[in-house]
Amino acid sequence: MLAEIKGINEECGVFGIWGHEKAAELTYYGLHSMQHRGQEGAGVVVSDGNQLKAHKGLGLVNDVFKNADFSALSGNVAVGHVRYSTQGGKVLENVQPLLFRSQTESIALAHNGNIMNAYKLRGELEEEGSILQTSSDTEVLAHLIKRSGNKITEETIAKALNQVVGAYAYLILKENKMFVALDPTGIRPLSIGRLGEAYVVASETCAFDQIGATFEREVLPGELITISKEGMTSTRFAMREQRKMCAMEYVYLSRPDSDVNHVNVHASRKNMGKELAKESNVSADIVVGVPDSSISAAIGYAEESGLPYEMGIIKNRYVGRTFIQPSQELREQGVKLKLSPVRSIIEGQRVIMIDDSIVRGTTSKRIVQMLKDAGAKEVHVRIASPSIKNPCYYGIDMSTRDELIAANHTLEEISEIIGADSIAYLSEEGLEKAILKDKTIHQGICTACMTGKYPVKEEGAKEIAYTSC
Amino acid sequence: MLAEIKGINEECGVFGIWGHEKAAELTYYGLHSMQHRGQEGAGVVVSDGNQLKAHKGLGLVNDVFKNADFSALSGNVAVGHVRYSTQGGKVLENVQPLLFRSQTESIALAHNGNIMNAYKLRGELEEEGSILQTSSDTEVLAHLIKRSGNKITEETIAKALNQVVGAYAYLILKENKMFVALDPTGIRPLSIGRLGEAYVVASETCAFDQIGATFEREVLPGELITISKEGMTSTRFAMREQRKMCAMEYVYLSRPDSDVNHVNVHASRKNMGKELAKESNVSADIVVGVPDSSISAAIGYAEESGLPYEMGIIKNRYVGRTFIQPSQELREQGVKLKLSPVRSIIEGQRVIMIDDSIVRGTTSKRIVQMLKDAGAKEVHVRIASPSIKNPCYYGIDMSTRDELIAANHTLEEISEIIGADSIAYLSEEGLEKAILKDKTIHQGICTACMTGKYPVKEEGAKEIAYTSC
Amino acid sequence: MLAEIKGINEECGVFGIWGHEKAAELTYYGLHSMQHRGQEGAGVVVSDGNQLKAHKGLGLVNDVFKNADFSALSGNVAVGHVRYSTQGGKVLENVQPLLFRSQTESIALAHNGNIMNAYKLRGELEEEGSILQTSSDTEVLAHLIKRSGNKITEETIAKALNQVVGAYAYLILKENKMFVALDPTGIRPLSIGRLGEAYVVASETCAFDQIGATFEREVLPGELITISKEGMTSTRFAMREQRKMCAMEYVYLSRPDSDVNHVNVHASRKNMGKELAKESNVSADIVVGVPDSSISAAIGYAEESGLPYEMGIIKNRYVGRTFIQPSQELREQGVKLKLSPVRSIIEGQRVIMIDDSIVRGTTSKRIVQMLKDAGAKEVHVRIASPSIKNPCYYGIDMSTRDELIAANHTLEEISEIIGADSIAYLSEEGLEKAILKDKTIHQGICTACMTGKYPVKEEGAKEIAYTSC
Amino acid sequence: MLAEIKGINEECGVFGIWGHEKAAELTYYGLHSMQHRGQEGAGVVVSDGNQLKAHKGLGLVNDVFKNADFSALSGNVAVGHVRYSTQGGKVLENVQPLLFRSQTESIALAHNGNIMNAYKLRGELEEEGSILQTSSDTEVLAHLIKRSGNKITEETIAKALNQVVGAYAYLILKENKMFVALDPTGIRPLSIGRLGEAYVVASETCAFDQIGATFEREVLPGELITISKEGMTSTRFAMREQRKMCAMEYVYLSRPDSDVNHVNVHASRKNMGKELAKESNVSADIVVGVPDSSISAAIGYAEESGLPYEMGIIKNRYVGRTFIQPSQELREQGVKLKLSPVRSIIEGQRVIMIDDSIVRGTTSKRIVQMLKDAGAKEVHVRIASPSIKNPCYYGIDMSTRDELIAANHTLEEISEIIGADSIAYLSEEGLEKAILKDKTIHQGICTACMTGKYPVKEEGAKEIAYTSC
Repeated sequence: MLAEIKGINEECGVFGIWGHEKAAELTYYGLHSMQHRGQEGAGVVVSDGNQLKAHKGLGLVNDVFKNADFSALSGNVAVGHVRYSTQGGKVLENVQPLLFRSQTESIALAHNGNIMNAYKLRGELEEEGSILQTSSDTEVLAHLIKRSGNKITEETIAKALNQVVGAYAYLILKENKMFVALDPTGIRPLSIGRLGEAYVVASETCAFDQIGATFEREVLPGELITISKEGMTSTRFAMREQRKMCAMEYVYLSRPDSDVNHVNVHASRKNMGKELAKESNVSADIVVGVPDSSISAAIGYAEESGLPYEMGIIKNRYVGRTFIQPSQELREQGVKLKLSPVRSIIEGQRVIMIDDSIVRGTTSKRIVQMLKDAGAKEVHVRIASPSIKNPCYYGIDMSTRDELIAANHTLEEISEIIGADSIAYLSEEGLEKAILKDKTIHQGICTACMTGKYPVKEEGAKEIAYTSC
Repeated sequence: MLAEIKGINEECGVFGIWGHEKAAELTYYGLHSMQHRGQEGAGVVVSDGNQLKAHKGLGLVNDVFKNADFSALSGNVAVGHVRYSTQGGKVLENVQPLLFRSQTESIALAHNGNIMNAYKLRGELEEEGSILQTSSDTEVLAHLIKRSGNKITEETIAKALNQVVGAYAYLILKENKMFVALDPTGIRPLSIGRLGEAYVVASETCAFDQIGATFEREVLPGELITISKEGMTSTRFAMREQRKMCAMEYVYLSRPDSDVNHVNVHASRKNMGKELAKESNVSADIVVGVPDSSISAAIGYAEESGLPYEMGIIKNRYVGRTFIQPSQELREQGVKLKLSPVRSIIEGQRVIMIDDSIVRGTTSKRIVQMLKDAGAKEVHVRIASPSIKNPCYYGIDMSTRDELIAANHTLEEISEIIGADSIAYLSEEGLEKAILKDKTIHQGICTACMTGKYPVKEEGAKEIAYTSC
Repeated sequence: MLAEIKGINEECGVFGIWGHEKAAELTYYGLHSMQHRGQEGAGVVVSDGNQLKAHKGLGLVNDVFKNADFSALSGNVAVGHVRYSTQGGKVLENVQPLLFRSQTESIALAHNGNIMNAYKLRGELEEEGSILQTSSDTEVLAHLIKRSGNKITEETIAKALNQVVGAYAYLILKENKMFVALDPTGIRPLSIGRLGEAYVVASETCAFDQIGATFEREVLPGELITISKEGMTSTRFAMREQRKMCAMEYVYLSRPDSDVNHVNVHASRKNMGKELAKESNVSADIVVGVPDSSISAAIGYAEESGLPYEMGIIKNRYVGRTFIQPSQELREQGVKLKLSPVRSIIEGQRVIMIDDSIVRGTTSKRIVQMLKDAGAKEVHVRIASPSIKNPCYYGIDMSTRDELIAANHTLEEISEIIGADSIAYLSEEGLEKAILKDKTIHQGICTACMTGKYPVKEEGAKEIAYTSC
Repeated sequence: MLAEIKGINEECGVFGIWGHEKAAELTYYGLHSMQHRGQEGAGVVVSDGNQLKAHKGLGLVNDVFKNADFSALSGNVAVGHVRYSTQGGKVLENVQPLLFRSQTESIALAHNGNIMNAYKLRGELEEEGSILQTSSDTEVLAHLIKRSGNKITEETIAKALNQVVGAYAYLILKENKMFVALDPTGIRPLSIGRLGEAYVVASETCAFDQIGATFEREVLPGELITISKEGMTSTRFAMREQRKMCAMEYVYLSRPDSDVNHVNVHASRKNMGKELAKESNVSADIVVGVPDSSISAAIGYAEESGLPYEMGIIKNRYVGRTFIQPSQELREQGVKLKLSPVRSIIEGQRVIMIDDSIVRGTTSKRIVQMLKDAGAKEVHVRIASPSIKNPCYYGIDMSTRDELIAANHTLEEISEIIGADSIAYLSEEGLEKAILKDKTIHQGICTACMTGKYPVKEEGAKEIAYTSC
């Protein structure tokens, strides 16, 4: 929900299950636990071995599935998807998994990431007479597979994957096989779990906890996994590179109870808070976190600094899609939106306000003002990650560079703009220390939006080329 | 939301505003902030000085108001209500404020509490030829007022109030006056605030913060306040008694950011956690609170005990009315409901699990089991209030005595039933110490459900006589 | 549907059934067949002998009942109602049957007609301390009954009926009895039928055909019928007067397949057309009726005159509530509403256009214009009833006298206003001849709106006092 | 509506407009007037010269368009479609116009008819690597056009049309051109009209009357029309053959106010009734038509025979999608569906019952029974068209041959099965005489379903290959 305020939005989550008679229901629960990764649409495609059947819709997972006829979605294999849509892409036809039928075999695709050369590939396909149905970059892969030999096999998929450039986690389903693929630098998260005999695949491990499955292993960068009634096999479609897991997954996007590439998100955030306290502590009375995503870091900061953690800001749980926004006039008279201050906690205190990140600064400004209005004597803003200065090409919908406050202002200016008494960000080293246990080929983070060090490049790529996911 | 699991349910919240041109909108925001006090229905009645106009509906505040035509609800006076409904009473006609029109003057009533002698009064009224429309005990007061002189004045209202027995906070509106009344022992909360020149009345002070109003004073036990264009005047319809504020408002029902009778709820809960740590600490590794209502107490416990507070249990924010409940089969296979454990935090730890209260024990049992399944080495349950052993007659919908685990089992039995390694409740003294700053005529709490000391009695009263609020 | 255009609106239909285990379902079908009598709301109250249960809603019968849980509406007695609402009265609380519960016995009322002294009676009741819930005149009777002895019996009902003045057909239900009453001049229709052992009561006999019941007899003016497990008994609460059945029921309001007071409506309309042809035939090529209500008269006219009947005007069957009205601009460019002309039939012809009545003249003008635009050489308007010049006090919602074209203009003026080549109305004698088989005490019609001869009078009565039905 | 009972279903209607600033609104009204041609879905694609924008949905035209944002559908060119869906095809993706976007130019298609070689063409396309999105045969043409040169021109469309076999009326839209095509035998109707300067195209001329447009000319068999800002030009993509307009359009499918290939449908039906009376009159008292589609024929029969036409069967106007179907038990007890008899007209009479056609015979049987139950002394069934014995391959969804009563039974058997006292069908010659004014190359009818003379053949064609329209 805060996502809307922040201007950082996850783009999608994928879920797959092979070998459980309640495949469609479990996909519902799995997707439900990843609702925070995409709120615009959701869907499932089930296979009963002979036929693929789809149920999709715009809206929250609950809205989409409350009308599902699960008896019509029989089959013990399923792939599912939750979707966040970029501007203009909010139409049913873009809701995934995309399903393409033919007279010989059908194919369903669920995707998290961004294909950087989608525009170019699409032009080439259309030139050859293909008709594409969606404005989604995901569809390109289906056509590339068809053009790579007109059969859906490990080989044609690998051939197709070698033509796309970007960050991606793909689930591909045909009648009797499921394929799982991760981009060569492993920017997006994707894990394998087990539920009894069944295989489970998900963007976040919280989906495993939700359905009672256990974590088995990470999908490796450049790996292509095939699951069939013969079991699970694995090949590589690309050379092994050092993994560069998206740092924003830890900072803001993933659920605190997920383990992203073996690291618990809550724990990493608490560490960020501790590192932040070490780097830039300040004399104050209480530590307050901006709910919900900054609570872990705030607790860490409080523990490290020895200051009490207090619930100085309350998030209204019932503010949802149907909330009637107050008019400008009422807002100026003091009517609150999602967050309210707790005057009896804040009044007269020197407050350290912990937030996970700042994008445009408008929300931070509003919260600082709210705390001051509630009587805070001082407000020291501490951000539990480095400042965001660069666009993301790997599937996170961020504000454009023009809007990024840190890309256009010094620390002093930011502090003044948001009205804080002081401000500090976590250092790049602090972030790495907080997240990484070791720095091996398997452990590494992408901090491109903070540092400008882009692990994957593509001439002419747009931040969001077509509607990505 | 946890309410449904717990079996303790607040019964209603009231809101009133006098003298603001956006009275209806502000009532919406005020009610929205008190959504936790009643989720079955909501409504507003507005006066423009000449006429009362109503908008009411079943469902959440947002659902009810998203279709409201605020331009048709013009007027600078309004009373509003959120309602929790007891069994069988979930019909539109019971949604408040109740509005009764006549050819001379109209009356609207919004009520929080329970009239203990409603059944008897109703029989008497019907005997005399009155037709009652609702099954709500609130309506009785309207008929008593009409029968007390057929004019709606301070005198007829006082006369009517003296016939009812119970716990109640009443807002009464006619075309050109608003009346505010609180029962003689002040069991239910009711406060007065100011928004510029306007008067505001609300069950909880969080409604003041929501709209930018400031707290002015408590309504006193037995006080009848009249607000009109002449301003605010006050009389007493009953003798002053020691205030007995419902302790459950602090323990569980009110929002943490509300001040109930001058005491902040979050702060009182943190104190309960601290007192609990003093009374019954135990050797362990981490402190975990059951979200959301026990987080404050858990933080207090952690601070007092020096143990780290950890986010070991996650509440799924998207579980709402449309969530598809897992079948028994899927639940047994491990599919989770609202709460999930965070394995990487819990595993191998000795956990102190803080909960605010236990009603039937079924939820506690499920959470303890969940923690053990996630690898907890020990689970020590600490309850931040005394055990609940008695029914409430004052407007809280609790389980019946038969279902109250503490009414039927010893501490050892409870510990065994819920599968904990140890259990302890906060003492009655600890609770008082945590809540009360002093013990004057203005400060006192009703602990009848814990101690059996009932401040108001009525022969033959039912726990819920008719549909109360 | 044309009703909306015309400005004549039936006010309600009632249905009752005693002694059938599918009472609620049959009430649905009965009400459905009388949908034309009221489209704003519908409801049913069922008795299982011990308890009255209601299901009501705003909207069409289908809309209201599609969500009904018929298993919860068990019981072999039911009364139902379809409602047309006058200005301002379109709220759920006015939807009938009205149901009033008390601790001793409950009462449900369904009503078609208009209580002319409702305002006065209501004032008296409120003076005595009664609180009325609805703005419906129907409710007054319930209070009068309660005030007449606080038991619902034949005697208290008769006593109450003798206090009301107007035109009415009442169904009254308590747990173990159903009462049926008709006003002393029998202005509104009400018939008794049988379905096996069960008794059926309905405003129109088409409801009997719909459920497979057979007509038994008319309810007589001033009659009060009681149905209980002892069977059906009858008394009179008022002196016998000559029946004055509303002539508009034949002309426009009732369904053509209903028999109103023993006379088939379609047959009477065909007769009106024949009488009209005799009275005012004219040289022309084809006869065209305005669908749907004037088709019978047009066929009669064609038969009598020897001219061919042609389908020169088509009514769009799909124009319903959700039809998007064309803007003024599009309407002027020729976009049609409900009615379209058939050019290949109309073009070059001299057309006799038959309509059942004219209220304001705006629709007639539009249709004449449409025919001329489609190429009609001449348009002769023939109206199959006398001109309407006076308001109705007996439950038909007509335009006010100011709007009635015939109250303010001569025949020549009307012809010119609507653009016809000639116009003629049926004479009063022609109307009587067409409807009445004999003129006995049992046969007679109220033509007050045409002739100004009002069979029932009341000082100060409004056309619609309160919300009537 | 009767369609559902009958088992004959029109498959779709198309509408196009070029050169009017309210193109989308006018498409709504045009489609609305053709609602009877398809009730499962509707849509519009608008061009503003640069871009195609779509609005589509499942449900009735009103349901689909009530949520349309017409301001977002700006542009002065539009094509629209109403759709009837065959089994299994009721999904949003099949709702037309189909819209395919590419980086160079986009294409929208609206289609009425059936492509007999769709299955074969589809297999070939997929073999070459194309991915088809819908199960609609309409989509095949889009791929054929793309494969014919990757530009959407008159030439590539003509080349594509020459590959398809069947009956079809196509509207094709790109950003700056509209194409109109009719199959070489002209089995499906398609007309051109004018509205001021604007061009209008529609399956039925009632759409012209609806929007105030005037008929200009028929689209000719094998003609391909191009409309652009240069005006309208025409070519032929196929040799001229004698037109074979679907006879069922006159008998049952089209609206009575439409002119199909210059012949008014109501007039042709009245002629069918007259011819029928000449061919097989019988001694009786009254003529009754089955509403709505047989009323014209019944009036013709009455005029020719000199017997009175009576409204002996009433159709309930409010029976729609939300009507609750009576249980078998209630139906047996006499609860009626859509049609009710008028007992006071039928009783004791010898009835000639006119119906337009018989498919399975089940409806006829029910109606005959209903008339007898209502007291008819004799029921003589007269069918105003020849008997249906063969399947349709040209876009009408009929029952299969096994279900066609006339394909499996003699006249005597049919009479006995449906319980009539006698039965007669119109002869083939009578039908031709009733419809055709002359028998030229431009005038001719397809009577394949009656006579087995199929004007277009294709090896292995299914009655409905894929989802046709």
